Amino acid sequence: MITKQDLLIAQKNIFGFTHQTPVLTSSFIDSIAGCEIYFKCENFQKMGAFKMRGAINAIKHLTDEERQKGVVTHSSGNFAQAVALGAKLLGVKAYIVMPINAPKVKKNAVLDYGGEVIDCEPTIKAREAMAAKVQKEKGSTFLHPYNQKEVISGQGTAAIELFNEIEDLEIILTPIGGGGLISGTALACHFFSPNIQVIGAEPENVDDAYRSLISGKIEINEITDTIADGLRTTLGDITFPIIQEHIKEILLVSEAEIKFAMKLIWERMKIIVEPSCAVPLAAVLRNQSKFKNKKIGIILSGGNVDLTMFFDNL
Amino acid sequence: MITKQDLLIAQKNIFGFTHQTPVLTSSFIDSIAGCEIYFKCENFQKMGAFKMRGAINAIKHLTDEERQKGVVTHSSGNFAQAVALGAKLLGVKAYIVMPINAPKVKKNAVLDYGGEVIDCEPTIKAREAMAAKVQKEKGSTFLHPYNQKEVISGQGTAAIELFNEIEDLEIILTPIGGGGLISGTALACHFFSPNIQVIGAEPENVDDAYRSLISGKIEINEITDTIADGLRTTLGDITFPIIQEHIKEILLVSEAEIKFAMKLIWERMKIIVEPSCAVPLAAVLRNQSKFKNKKIGIILSGGNVDLTMFFDNL
Repeated sequence: MITKQDLLIAQKNIFGFTHQTPVLTSSFIDSIAGCEIYFKCENFQKMGAFKMRGAINAIKHLTDEERQKGVVTHSSGNFAQAVALGAKLLGVKAYIVMPINAPKVKKNAVLDYGGEVIDCEPTIKAREAMAAKVQKEKGSTFLHPYNQKEVISGQGTAAIELFNEIEDLEIILTPIGGGGLISGTALACHFFSPNIQVIGAEPENVDDAYRSLISGKIEINEITDTIADGLRTTLGDITFPIIQEHIKEILLVSEAEIKFAMKLIWERMKIIVEPSCAVPLAAVLRNQSKFKNKKIGIILSGGNVDLTMFFDNL
Repeated sequence: MITKQDLLIAQKNIFGFTHQTPVLTSSFIDSIAGCEIYFKCENFQKMGAFKMRGAINAIKHLTDEERQKGVVTHSSGNFAQAVALGAKLLGVKAYIVMPINAPKVKKNAVLDYGGEVIDCEPTIKAREAMAAKVQKEKGSTFLHPYNQKEVISGQGTAAIELFNEIEDLEIILTPIGGGGLISGTALACHFFSPNIQVIGAEPENVDDAYRSLISGKIEINEITDTIADGLRTTLGDITFPIIQEHIKEILLVSEAEIKFAMKLIWERMKIIVEPSCAVPLAAVLRNQSKFKNKKIGIILSGGNVDLTMFFDNL
């Protein structure tokens, strides 16, 4: 169980190792959405995503002995970079298990941050097996991208910063992948600002959390065909109960709606956000009557987009 | 002649009608550049570029009678949008002469801001003739994108905000197109912060300002083949003397260097800037020994990029 105290410790742990990211608004987006939206810009976070918060908090929780043996995770996404950079900042060795077919740009980012990349076959089984092997051989501590208490508490700090800065928010929306961000956000609101309703947003094409909430058990995605690559994962046995307890509603959006919302953010706010970030805004635009005139917070989860194609064509 | 008083009036005039844009830094970019860079983010300015400052200041200088007859300009770029939005905010009619082959996205932006678009043939002569016709028929006041005292004073306010916020800047770099931004910046430093050296940055492919400074007369570009579409214009008879008096150095950069610097800003700072904005950073990266350990300001002039191609390929 994650307590109020856990979140307060997380807040203290991340201080100085993460940015207090800015909250931006767009009068144009407000005018077409029919409500007031405050965007918490985790795309400006260190390494470009909120995952930095959970990684720092988790590493800070290690004992001195554990620190000396390093940390290990398997990820081809933002958590890989977060653990690599977080570990570096805290003087801890990081082993990052990545599938051999992971984009070179992602591997290079991990290497740039000082992480040691360990290749594995591109299956979830192979990833888990390799991480377990490193854990055993090196004695390193395994860090989970979302299904871990310290990681969830860390992610909750983004919401705390948001509602501490912007008063009287009525709703906070976050995307749902493995559930780390929404769990942390829900707990942060529950403990410190219980009037805020937390709503999840998920692509129709990977609606596992939506279905899990209905069926009462963790559902998986048979196919993961969405542009929102950060949201293809399924819930964990720690995140799911928190979501069951605190989240009353998950809104679904189409791929076209995600692209439209993402383009709107890029064009109007002049900031680069990942497709996953655009999912909550897409949900607001699709359900305008629901959000009419409300004061809403949206956590823009990250900004790590491969821009190669765009620049190659310039 | 533009006086200290003109700049103070400009500052007062734009208050409430423009954003005081944020100043951002990137420790990664600093580390590869070998200096401390403070980016003044005019891409976050209203309508997405510093041009808003000059447009507002110019319209604010009109008499009541002039206001009633509206303003006219010819532009297919940011100044068109700046005049359209600035005029709207100040309750003045705006006629924007645009070449018939101007991108639809640019025409729509002007229309969205409430400007009246007047088509003309795609030559500079046709543009000037049509603007003169509107001026005559409607009695509207012509606003020049850069070669006008009030416009230059308005553009100078970006630098004032920058050095008021960041102390002890040694150098400010701006791109040079028609010279409005660099003239305003040079005068702002001259009057209020004379220890700051202002340096221009220009694409090799449109090096008219560089050559003008050497030859002592306004040079033109025979071809305008650069990705930095905001910098294809040549200097005016008002901007050139100011540049002659205050600018000791203009640095040239290649197209590849512009693209590299632009990608660096997008990838690392997660913000969208126009190619023209990347020219000063490209100049810093090309001349590292010159800028070593200096404290530098760079005005990121705007963020209006056509993203259609990128999103169509998502």
